[in-house]
Amino acid sequence: MKQSQLFTKTKKEAPSDEVAKNAQLLIRAGFIHKEMAGVYAYMPLGLRVLENIKRIVREEMNAVGGQELMMTTLQPKEIWEKTGRWDDAKVDNWFKTKLVNGTELGVGLTHEEPIVDAVSNYLNSYKGMPFSVYQIQNKFRNEKRAKSGILRGREFLMKDMYTFCKDQEQHEQEYEKIVAAYHRVYARLGLGEITYRTYADGGIFTPRFSDEFQTLTEVGEDTIYVDEKKRIAINEEILTDENLKKLGLDRNDLVAKKGVEVGNTFHLESKYTDALDLFYIDEKGEKQSILMGCYGIGVSRLMGVVAELFSDDKGLVWPENVAPFAVHLLSLGQDEETEKICIELEKNGIEVLFDDRDAQAGAKFADSDLIGIPCRVVVSKKSLAAGGLEVKMRNESESKIMTVEELLQMLKK
Amino acid sequence: MKQSQLFTKTKKEAPSDEVAKNAQLLIRAGFIHKEMAGVYAYMPLGLRVLENIKRIVREEMNAVGGQELMMTTLQPKEIWEKTGRWDDAKVDNWFKTKLVNGTELGVGLTHEEPIVDAVSNYLNSYKGMPFSVYQIQNKFRNEKRAKSGILRGREFLMKDMYTFCKDQEQHEQEYEKIVAAYHRVYARLGLGEITYRTYADGGIFTPRFSDEFQTLTEVGEDTIYVDEKKRIAINEEILTDENLKKLGLDRNDLVAKKGVEVGNTFHLESKYTDALDLFYIDEKGEKQSILMGCYGIGVSRLMGVVAELFSDDKGLVWPENVAPFAVHLLSLGQDEETEKICIELEKNGIEVLFDDRDAQAGAKFADSDLIGIPCRVVVSKKSLAAGGLEVKMRNESESKIMTVEELLQMLKK
Repeated sequence: MKQSQLFTKTKKEAPSDEVAKNAQLLIRAGFIHKEMAGVYAYMPLGLRVLENIKRIVREEMNAVGGQELMMTTLQPKEIWEKTGRWDDAKVDNWFKTKLVNGTELGVGLTHEEPIVDAVSNYLNSYKGMPFSVYQIQNKFRNEKRAKSGILRGREFLMKDMYTFCKDQEQHEQEYEKIVAAYHRVYARLGLGEITYRTYADGGIFTPRFSDEFQTLTEVGEDTIYVDEKKRIAINEEILTDENLKKLGLDRNDLVAKKGVEVGNTFHLESKYTDALDLFYIDEKGEKQSILMGCYGIGVSRLMGVVAELFSDDKGLVWPENVAPFAVHLLSLGQDEETEKICIELEKNGIEVLFDDRDAQAGAKFADSDLIGIPCRVVVSKKSLAAGGLEVKMRNESESKIMTVEELLQMLKK
Repeated sequence: MKQSQLFTKTKKEAPSDEVAKNAQLLIRAGFIHKEMAGVYAYMPLGLRVLENIKRIVREEMNAVGGQELMMTTLQPKEIWEKTGRWDDAKVDNWFKTKLVNGTELGVGLTHEEPIVDAVSNYLNSYKGMPFSVYQIQNKFRNEKRAKSGILRGREFLMKDMYTFCKDQEQHEQEYEKIVAAYHRVYARLGLGEITYRTYADGGIFTPRFSDEFQTLTEVGEDTIYVDEKKRIAINEEILTDENLKKLGLDRNDLVAKKGVEVGNTFHLESKYTDALDLFYIDEKGEKQSILMGCYGIGVSRLMGVVAELFSDDKGLVWPENVAPFAVHLLSLGQDEETEKICIELEKNGIEVLFDDRDAQAGAKFADSDLIGIPCRVVVSKKSLAAGGLEVKMRNESESKIMTVEELLQMLKK
């Protein structure tokens, strides 16, 4: 894509009311636009990053048999009343609205109830299980405060998955399969080393712990205690001697760290299925409860985490897997020659942002550092005289002269 | 995909409160789930169709230079007050909600105001134009009645595009480029022959006509007058002698037809940009108004139109371009042999729904007709004895015996 045609432009300053580093950088680089606190629109560069993260999440959910669907944002209150979750005293972050005739509706904050309601159209026998469904969709939560950029939104993109199993054994298998898929997602985003499976409160439905996936970062809102050898952690909120004993952890092996929750997995037992009257008939013809699990990944939050962690004082430093383009191609007064190179790269399936703007070299370099595409390729009189292109990776300081063929070789690795 | 693992099942009956044929068929076949009137969730088969339509729309919008972005559902009232569209007396189909602190918010029904607001961060010079942005996103409209299934939803998927131009000449060029792209979209969906560019009321912002794209169908809510020779139509609401003269149409050449509006394009002049204080500086350094156009395609509505039009008394008949799978592969007691064929087809990039269920042949045939995948392939003792697979297209009545190689040849065409 030609940068002269990209309608967003970089900015020297972020809005003065924006305190989160992720949002400051993403706004300055033209990836997002702040609609209001906790509500951000995704401009073309930002949407490309988001779509890359969605693709990774989708591939891993499909690989464990997840069936993708799309539930609705507008929610009838009846199904939420059955589980007691319509009441604002119990769930304090609903957005609610009304039909013209006055009927109250909810604006989807999660989807256990509607998923169970939809599934009840199809499921009645043990033969239909186990199965899992998921969606990647905006959720709406009426947060009192929203100062962390896209790390905590009032409107945010989430992957939520739900499993349905006939017994505990099936449930444990599905649950661990999905936990393994989560680790693969974080690894592909470059966060594998610093993301810990973390024991946390299981909520009101089960005496068991839930699992959080916490990525270590100073801007995290949670405190977790990490056992670095065992590569496991425990959330501060459940750090008691009794729990440590139950989990086989030793307080002396734990180190306190700040983390941001990039995923969670819950054992829901039969809380929702029972409440919404969804049962199955077993091999003997008897009615039985259905066990559910639910599994979330904050997709837009992950984009924020990556932006926070992979950045320096000059701007963003995208990992290859999520970068909006693979190559930032800068023409310094060599537009004709550079356009040929751009076409050659694109013919080879490389996604290129081609800076064809009539601008100073310094401005082009500064913008390139701010936008943070992994591989910067400069075409100038000097580079052509030296034998080709001046190639510099965003996360390295030295550049190299390469031919187009050498660049293609490097990018294919 | 193995059908035994697909969690949705077909149904003999649609819900009794569902009067629209498109929704009746789509619910019975397991493509959609009714959440409430005008609000439908998309099950895996339905989501696959929707994604196929999105892909076609996206390809055509990208081909005319559209830059994809994603605006927000939650909307601050301030920007809508600037154009007078916050007032429920003027716009009567808002869903509104509130932050915890009482601040009123809108639930996005369209996006002219927020798009102009976002663009004002980047655009100030004539050099930046023309450009166009678009999104494919759920819209929310508080309709009094919603009885047409996914033809008219309270929550529905829409592609909305916006152009920004420096003068009338640029605007006309962009506008006609997009109209041409719309025709390509409808053609690729198999609706080209029966979809008419239709003159309609331009709204309060311009004395000019807008264009609707009307697909002829008896269930359409609109009456249009078609000039079949000129392949153009006029909406009943503007059918006056004066307008006919202006448009060079003769009343005697027109035939009344029912149509459903599958797209529209509007000249917005500088109504929104002026109101939101977005201007540009021209070549002479002078401040000038920016001309906008807006362009909608109802993506979920198109799925409903295709379902209505391509169906028979046995069920759905999907066109190849949007079908959830290319092949419905039915094993009649030949699971092992059929699985090998399934793998062979998938290896060749063919998307297959493999009916491996332990069910009667009659039930499998009925489900296959209801689901409507274009190519049905039966593997039975009889077909194998005859030399291979029994292949029948959903829109034909005769079947043929083919080898796997012959089937692959046919599908590649």
